[in-house]
Amino acid sequence: MELQAYMQRVGRQARDASRAIARADSRVKNDALRAIASAIRRESTALLAANRDDLAAAHAAGLEPVMLERLTLSERSVAVMADGVEQIAALPDPVGEISDLKFRPSGIQVGKMRVPLGVIGIIYEARPNVTADAAALCLKSGNAAILRGGSEAIRSNRVIAALVHEGLALAGLPADVVQVIDTTDRAAVGQLITMREYVDVIVPRGGKGLIARLLAESRVPMIQHLDGNCHVYVDDDADFDKAMAIVENSKTQRYGTCNTAESLLVARAAAARLLPPIAAMLTAKGVEIRGCEETRALVAEALAATDEDYAAEFLAPIISVKVVAGIDEAIDHINRFGSHHTETIVSENYSKALRFLREVDSSSVMINASTRFADGFEYGLGAEIGISTDKIHARGPVGLEGLTSQKWIVLGSGQVRR
Amino acid sequence: MELQAYMQRVGRQARDASRAIARADSRVKNDALRAIASAIRRESTALLAANRDDLAAAHAAGLEPVMLERLTLSERSVAVMADGVEQIAALPDPVGEISDLKFRPSGIQVGKMRVPLGVIGIIYEARPNVTADAAALCLKSGNAAILRGGSEAIRSNRVIAALVHEGLALAGLPADVVQVIDTTDRAAVGQLITMREYVDVIVPRGGKGLIARLLAESRVPMIQHLDGNCHVYVDDDADFDKAMAIVENSKTQRYGTCNTAESLLVARAAAARLLPPIAAMLTAKGVEIRGCEETRALVAEALAATDEDYAAEFLAPIISVKVVAGIDEAIDHINRFGSHHTETIVSENYSKALRFLREVDSSSVMINASTRFADGFEYGLGAEIGISTDKIHARGPVGLEGLTSQKWIVLGSGQVRR
Repeated sequence: MELQAYMQRVGRQARDASRAIARADSRVKNDALRAIASAIRRESTALLAANRDDLAAAHAAGLEPVMLERLTLSERSVAVMADGVEQIAALPDPVGEISDLKFRPSGIQVGKMRVPLGVIGIIYEARPNVTADAAALCLKSGNAAILRGGSEAIRSNRVIAALVHEGLALAGLPADVVQVIDTTDRAAVGQLITMREYVDVIVPRGGKGLIARLLAESRVPMIQHLDGNCHVYVDDDADFDKAMAIVENSKTQRYGTCNTAESLLVARAAAARLLPPIAAMLTAKGVEIRGCEETRALVAEALAATDEDYAAEFLAPIISVKVVAGIDEAIDHINRFGSHHTETIVSENYSKALRFLREVDSSSVMINASTRFADGFEYGLGAEIGISTDKIHARGPVGLEGLTSQKWIVLGSGQVRR
Repeated sequence: MELQAYMQRVGRQARDASRAIARADSRVKNDALRAIASAIRRESTALLAANRDDLAAAHAAGLEPVMLERLTLSERSVAVMADGVEQIAALPDPVGEISDLKFRPSGIQVGKMRVPLGVIGIIYEARPNVTADAAALCLKSGNAAILRGGSEAIRSNRVIAALVHEGLALAGLPADVVQVIDTTDRAAVGQLITMREYVDVIVPRGGKGLIARLLAESRVPMIQHLDGNCHVYVDDDADFDKAMAIVENSKTQRYGTCNTAESLLVARAAAARLLPPIAAMLTAKGVEIRGCEETRALVAEALAATDEDYAAEFLAPIISVKVVAGIDEAIDHINRFGSHHTETIVSENYSKALRFLREVDSSSVMINASTRFADGFEYGLGAEIGISTDKIHARGPVGLEGLTSQKWIVLGSGQVRR
């Protein structure tokens, strides 16, 4: 009950603060962001000390190495955190932007105005930099934020929260614009995702397990991102050099990111020509190949792929490979086994490239480009709070605009309806 | 269990059909729509006969008069239904529309392509015309539709469904693009709103009770519209003639629509000048006034208003009236008591008008225009499937565009990420 009372208070405070931040001037919001960035730079020693305490506790609790790595801050990553907040200050303010004003036969002008969503709940795991990042994105887009980081990062997050509050106060904005939930009680998450009256949208950032669980229990709309099982389809009209470069970059530039390719489809008519050199390149880089029968006939080192492999997000130097009849089978395979994240076709054929673009049901669909480009910075959003594989509201990389909505506006001069 | 098996089959069929309709050409979709309109005109006698059977059964079951009225079709309303379907054929196809293509420093071009949502579930009450209307909007926007009308209209809906299927078949589209649930079992709705794997969005059309219940139980995103408690704020800088015309039209043009004004706010500095003539005009039209103390001091016939009155959607010749200090109290009152539907300010003051436009948190915000303009046709959408008072995904009148999403597209020429 005590937790519930605490969470209800957090929700009410966020709702109240959301009204103040929604009408705040760009200048005031940017002042706050720049003050937060300065405070982070000034207090980097204190922040690193708190982070060392988090790390010591996490070591003692036996946290796995990948989580320890995500939890760790360094002088450099604190500097990047401050720079990121300043970059968000430099982005154009989406709030209040008027578009599409058109005169109607009745004489009224109808258009749209961009408005904040209200209160955004962010649920994330170890990384403390998400605290500064998410706070800055919500603030700039005129939303109040309720941040729930991992319990392993609570000391680091408390310091960042204090610096965010300092910046808000300097700009004359209420502290409750950004609230960091200060309890390690896991039930707080259950409360947050069901407080429909106070929370307008939930943005989860974390592993598939976390997101699937939230999705099952949430009563608040979620900007969700389950997994990234991204495909490269090498068409029979592919340019050899482009195919080699795009497969290499999509698969091997980073193994652990959601826009990394996990599956390669090759058109049958080109398999004998293209698959052996592509496989040799991947094998030389230490990538394990799991292929269909036809792949294995062409690539000696390929293991046998199962349907689970075709559906998998490996996040590792492993790739599933399938020889397909052509564009139709490629599209069907992707829409069946993919996760609606990012897919690319390598082809010089106009009609097939356009069909792929139109018929593949993913949040990013590309022609002759690496899947690794599916990213808020690469797309020019300035920053991203996540990548949505959903269709409702936001799809693909979600930046400031994805944290807003549009209302209709009508400019009249006394018109009434006939 | 039999119902569940039936609904699962409907869902699976809709998902399969959604792929076919998503990639259908505009020409094919428009052929289907025009064939449906012709079939409706040709079979109007059969449709009216089925409707008479529905009406006889509804009379026998003691359905209330307002529901009987909504259930009733006439030669004229059948003609309007066919015209509506043809008008949707004439609208531009939103699917596949590419926008915002921009070159990025990496050399890729990034933009967006409009795509269907997938499968849309429509839940509605008595009106059989919704069957044709919703089917046409979903078809045109490239979505498969699952329609669940009221059991009182099932005979009419069956005839319309057959005519829709005839049109789909003539154009070579699968019949499952539009499925009308052919059971009066109420549990079908419970199934429909929880089949997350097959249904992408639910659009409820009906009374507040229906929608609140669906909202509580739905596991699928909903384009929701609870109620329309719309406000007219008459500022102290209001033009007298505009204030009179806008209050009259907003309140009295139609009493039963969701964009009808239910509440009038008047700035204190103008109350003595403006409120008595406005009240006299309303009273002369038979509108009951429920006001605050200050209103009652100026308007002899006004009854006392309660907080419930200020929150009410009367859908009747009743209006709540409050004298407010000025723009700030007006905005606070609306954001507190309103339903985020439609509000208008009557003012000649630039700064106050812009503040109202920006700070009122409603799906439509107007300056010097009647709230009655909040409508898909008046806004130029061509048609509307409903009005959303939500912020996620769609806000305000929802037309074809509201039934679509946008995916990111990347046009490259072999670029990889550095």
